[in-house]
Amino acid sequence: MGRVTTREAVLKLGGDAGRRSRDTLAAEEPLEIRVAGKQIAVTMRTPGDDFDLVAGYLVGEGVIREAHQIARMRFCGDSACSGPVGLGGEWSPDRIEAAHDTYNIVDVDLAPGTALPLWSLNRNTYTTSACGVCGKSSIEAVRANAHWSVETDPVQITPQILYSLPQTLRASQKLFSKTGGLHAAGLFASDGTLLCVREDVGRHNAVDKVIGWAVRDDRLPLRGHLLAVSGRASFELVQKTAAAGIPLLAAVSAPSSLAVELARESGMTLAGFVRGESANVYCGVERIASGE
Amino acid sequence: MGRVTTREAVLKLGGDAGRRSRDTLAAEEPLEIRVAGKQIAVTMRTPGDDFDLVAGYLVGEGVIREAHQIARMRFCGDSACSGPVGLGGEWSPDRIEAAHDTYNIVDVDLAPGTALPLWSLNRNTYTTSACGVCGKSSIEAVRANAHWSVETDPVQITPQILYSLPQTLRASQKLFSKTGGLHAAGLFASDGTLLCVREDVGRHNAVDKVIGWAVRDDRLPLRGHLLAVSGRASFELVQKTAAAGIPLLAAVSAPSSLAVELARESGMTLAGFVRGESANVYCGVERIASGE
Repeated sequence: MGRVTTREAVLKLGGDAGRRSRDTLAAEEPLEIRVAGKQIAVTMRTPGDDFDLVAGYLVGEGVIREAHQIARMRFCGDSACSGPVGLGGEWSPDRIEAAHDTYNIVDVDLAPGTALPLWSLNRNTYTTSACGVCGKSSIEAVRANAHWSVETDPVQITPQILYSLPQTLRASQKLFSKTGGLHAAGLFASDGTLLCVREDVGRHNAVDKVIGWAVRDDRLPLRGHLLAVSGRASFELVQKTAAAGIPLLAAVSAPSSLAVELARESGMTLAGFVRGESANVYCGVERIASGE
Repeated sequence: MGRVTTREAVLKLGGDAGRRSRDTLAAEEPLEIRVAGKQIAVTMRTPGDDFDLVAGYLVGEGVIREAHQIARMRFCGDSACSGPVGLGGEWSPDRIEAAHDTYNIVDVDLAPGTALPLWSLNRNTYTTSACGVCGKSSIEAVRANAHWSVETDPVQITPQILYSLPQTLRASQKLFSKTGGLHAAGLFASDGTLLCVREDVGRHNAVDKVIGWAVRDDRLPLRGHLLAVSGRASFELVQKTAAAGIPLLAAVSAPSSLAVELARESGMTLAGFVRGESANVYCGVERIASGE
């Protein structure tokens, strides 16, 4: 299933001197996502949980929202794919291992009635507006694709639960401690219980893997759930959060302007700079039971 | 030319209390890159220096390496592009402003003799290998596309110059101080003098903007130069560094496995965790005049 870390020789400099040592690095490999044999995306990711990554990616793109919408997923080589692996069925790494030796292409067959949106025919991005590209049209495109609304989700949490999310996430980052260089995403219940954590060199991949885990377990929409990410909150991460029906996104670092705009339009709660006992809440403040 | 920051209302939480305030955020908007009217990429970026971004992107993809290879660039709406803007010619924001009101699509006309590579016809990524996607084929594809080698670049710097790069970069980050949420890339001379710094919500965009500035000033290949980035070193950033002929990349955070592999194969010097008076040098150690 690929390596998640590698060991590399390194010259460790301190002041004017250097000494030879070894360092553990996060693995990065390309993953090509195909639907019915056609490439729809290539992402640079840390190997592992690749079926979750693909399923989560398809949720984010508005293609699926339930496990049964994927008929099967399989690793494949360039032309020949290995034996089918049902999404809900038994999946044996050994069986895959025997068939071939690359794990960087996943081919998906969608169930009858589930189709790729038009954008996939000629572009690899989520921008679907034909009237030019702008933040506003991006937001409208996301909203038009939305399967459900998070606006009416009545979940409410205390500031203390909000503060606990990045701390719990950080404590669960096995690879970060080794490599010092991985993004993480964590899905939480409304009481702050961690349900699923994933680490990846790409922060969007970490989120895709978490949401893919949830959709394959048929948990969508994730009403009353909370998502935390280790870095910044971009437009893309807010989009993925909304697509999974999650009403609250907490980020350790800053959000972008368009992330806030989309979160507000979607009726989501977006918190940034969640560090120690402080946080900035940019919208959806009614979900935070603060002393305000 | 678009906003680089915005002001947003925010609820600032501290302990159990909250107070209303305002916060400055980094702007994020999509930019669609077209060549001869055909979309080849969409990136989420902080508006500003968009022609540099596009030129740098084209260097990274191996499409151009000299300014004259771009006949013209212009902002355009969906179907109609505004008046031509020569790359080396006079460029007036006022003239653009009058023609339309969106700045999120840039159309490029390549000079005769400069063509898009085959990949652009059916995919948006740099993976060009037809034999399946893997780290090794990605590296081979990058090397096959390379216009020049950094392997023989004899530049050598002291550890002290290496340490100074992130510090100089950070001191020049105007937007980061305001928003707390932007990536930066800086191009330096071999004595540590900062030549160009750019900030963006996307770290690959910051690098594209720096390299685009350099190619538009006909400075490629950037022999004897140093590039510093504020975050991690990914495969993609090493690829862009090599494509510009830069022999040394210094990152504040960790590199990925594939970043180190590509840097080593390219004969580049790659340093990570450059913080204070320490750094890890993963390859190309001969360019660091350390006491080792």
